[in-house]
Amino acid sequence: MSPFQPQFAQRTLNVNPSAIRELLKVAQQPDMISFAGGMPAPELFPRAELDAAARLVMADAGKAIQALQYGLSEGYAPLRERLVGMLAEEGIKTSIERVLITTGSQQAIDMVAKLLVDPGDHVVVSSPTFLGAIQSFNSYQARYLSVPQDDQGMRTDILAEVLANNRPKLIYIIPNFQNPTGRSMSEARKREVYELARQYGVPVLEDDPYGDLYFGEKRPLALKALDAEDGVVLLRTFSKVLAPGLRIGYAVLPASMMGPIMPLKQSADLHSSALNQMMIDEFLKADVLPGHLVTLRSVYRQRRDWMLAAMAENFPSDVEWTRPEGGLFIWVTLPKGVSAAAILKEAIGHKVAFVPGDAFFTDGGGENTFRLNFSMATEEQINEGIQRLGELLRTAMPRPTIA
Amino acid sequence: MSPFQPQFAQRTLNVNPSAIRELLKVAQQPDMISFAGGMPAPELFPRAELDAAARLVMADAGKAIQALQYGLSEGYAPLRERLVGMLAEEGIKTSIERVLITTGSQQAIDMVAKLLVDPGDHVVVSSPTFLGAIQSFNSYQARYLSVPQDDQGMRTDILAEVLANNRPKLIYIIPNFQNPTGRSMSEARKREVYELARQYGVPVLEDDPYGDLYFGEKRPLALKALDAEDGVVLLRTFSKVLAPGLRIGYAVLPASMMGPIMPLKQSADLHSSALNQMMIDEFLKADVLPGHLVTLRSVYRQRRDWMLAAMAENFPSDVEWTRPEGGLFIWVTLPKGVSAAAILKEAIGHKVAFVPGDAFFTDGGGENTFRLNFSMATEEQINEGIQRLGELLRTAMPRPTIA
Repeated sequence: MSPFQPQFAQRTLNVNPSAIRELLKVAQQPDMISFAGGMPAPELFPRAELDAAARLVMADAGKAIQALQYGLSEGYAPLRERLVGMLAEEGIKTSIERVLITTGSQQAIDMVAKLLVDPGDHVVVSSPTFLGAIQSFNSYQARYLSVPQDDQGMRTDILAEVLANNRPKLIYIIPNFQNPTGRSMSEARKREVYELARQYGVPVLEDDPYGDLYFGEKRPLALKALDAEDGVVLLRTFSKVLAPGLRIGYAVLPASMMGPIMPLKQSADLHSSALNQMMIDEFLKADVLPGHLVTLRSVYRQRRDWMLAAMAENFPSDVEWTRPEGGLFIWVTLPKGVSAAAILKEAIGHKVAFVPGDAFFTDGGGENTFRLNFSMATEEQINEGIQRLGELLRTAMPRPTIA
Repeated sequence: MSPFQPQFAQRTLNVNPSAIRELLKVAQQPDMISFAGGMPAPELFPRAELDAAARLVMADAGKAIQALQYGLSEGYAPLRERLVGMLAEEGIKTSIERVLITTGSQQAIDMVAKLLVDPGDHVVVSSPTFLGAIQSFNSYQARYLSVPQDDQGMRTDILAEVLANNRPKLIYIIPNFQNPTGRSMSEARKREVYELARQYGVPVLEDDPYGDLYFGEKRPLALKALDAEDGVVLLRTFSKVLAPGLRIGYAVLPASMMGPIMPLKQSADLHSSALNQMMIDEFLKADVLPGHLVTLRSVYRQRRDWMLAAMAENFPSDVEWTRPEGGLFIWVTLPKGVSAAAILKEAIGHKVAFVPGDAFFTDGGGENTFRLNFSMATEEQINEGIQRLGELLRTAMPRPTIA
């Protein structure tokens, strides 16, 4: 036995490898029809435009040096300036001093948790919620106040009770096309959440990776646009609308947090890739993002429609699911007592994969739920995969006896 | 007053913005001769080769999709495979399963601290040591066991005492051309450190950003090459030998740590930039790194020589300094009672900057020390800047009275 037997920190006891990432390895087997991931469609990556953006950076001696040298921990100033302008068009008033470029939204979630959460502190989350956020919160030994959802996401009647009886450090929400449910808050619901947060002085972490992938008329309102009192951290990312491999996101922070979070960014990774920030800046400057978003929305809406239609045709009548108005996910609820994990086991044998829902709940339950992703699959895969799943569901589920 | 008054976590009380990063803003004023930074010389970046590497990735549809899509948290497999081969040439036997790509070495330090350090746990550090590591350790509320240096770095007689009387979680060292002192451990010293670590079962974090920048005949021995018992975490980075803006480093981990660190990497940023990893893989494949390193070593050695010669000519005789055999830094010790911070204040008025040494000490002291960087300056800047510093030192320092 090695004389080195490291004693790991307490916080690691709360942290397990993401069940989804382990599952994704299975889901990547050839012939697997996978509705398990949460990735953008690779055939839609604007490869030529990103290649051109990289060439523009590297062709200019001054820019190339900035792309290759150490940069500001806050991020590349011209990109942050440009983001401030884009946010203004949505009614979000901020300034370059409040914008922090992060290595994806995941890093921003992790840093905000590190900034605020002492072991045992409470974080309010929607139930279910994003697994990556749970993983970060767990790593700082948070406890959860889990607020159930209705068809508009987090229930504010219960949030009001929770805030009246506890002193959480943070309210974490994904207001638009939530992961994993696909549900969205109405403007009225957002105003209620903000009002409650303001009343109790609890900062809101507004994680919004999907807001640009709306299937309706316009981008949904950001909570941050309501934030007259400067208590909302807004997270955005280029992962879902451009390319996750670049690992570039950004946080718009309240004045109170910007100073204290900077040493955490410095100790996390000094700064995010300078080259990738500058590529994105060139891409935005070329003004091809709006057209690219039109394409993404139209393709993803079509795939959602195909999936919803196939589900209506193939799923038993006592199965329920959401009808998302954007984003990447549909959320399925089976009758109580039916195990999505058991069905997944069968499904993998039939070469279809999805994510069982229980891992998304911080308060237990959800064994009868699962998440379907529609952004990565073709029409044929959707029809074939949903048909196979429908058969499995019909076999697995108890038939009602005739009364 | 805003109703939002966030209560920050305890750990943030230990963390201050890096004094160096604040100083670097001053040092970037025009006309400033700065010996303050620790950056590679930008005129030596292999821009054309990195541009070519990016084009190779983006020109291949399959590679481009990998560069832009979500990737493995462990890192791009072909790059890790290549690194395993390069490490083998140095006598470091490892496998792809033990290599984790990180967003610079800073992230690896932060993750290892997060993995091992509970609040109040001890970490053994050399005194002085790298400020970025102190910042990460502080953010996990470490306490320090500071081991002083002789001309070979960490003193093993004192390390032995420290290990006999304490149970630290980690021994942190920069064995080659240390930041901030430029000192290096001999092979014998490295063996002593490893033997003590093994004897007491305390893992070693071997941070080696500078080892390839040797001015002698060959790369210094890695502690990891002695690690028959699998207790050393070796950190390397492409920041000093290639381009820090890409933010790509790597850790070679003991088997015991690889599993537990993966959830921390996932919650930190999911994975490091896929594009940048693939660019570096193409760059390494083209086999231009060895030639690039020859250039870096020769230029940096020349700059060190210029700086040492100018110091010998201009600095008072009671000032001492190191003569580094590689890396980026010279360490200066003034007579006791002379304040480097006070001299810096004067120096900035005379348009010369350096980093006062006290921030590098976890146990106080060092007010009479400072760090000089020689990688970024021209011969003219070195001669002019060191001459100005010499004048300030002669003015500031008490002359010995005739006995």
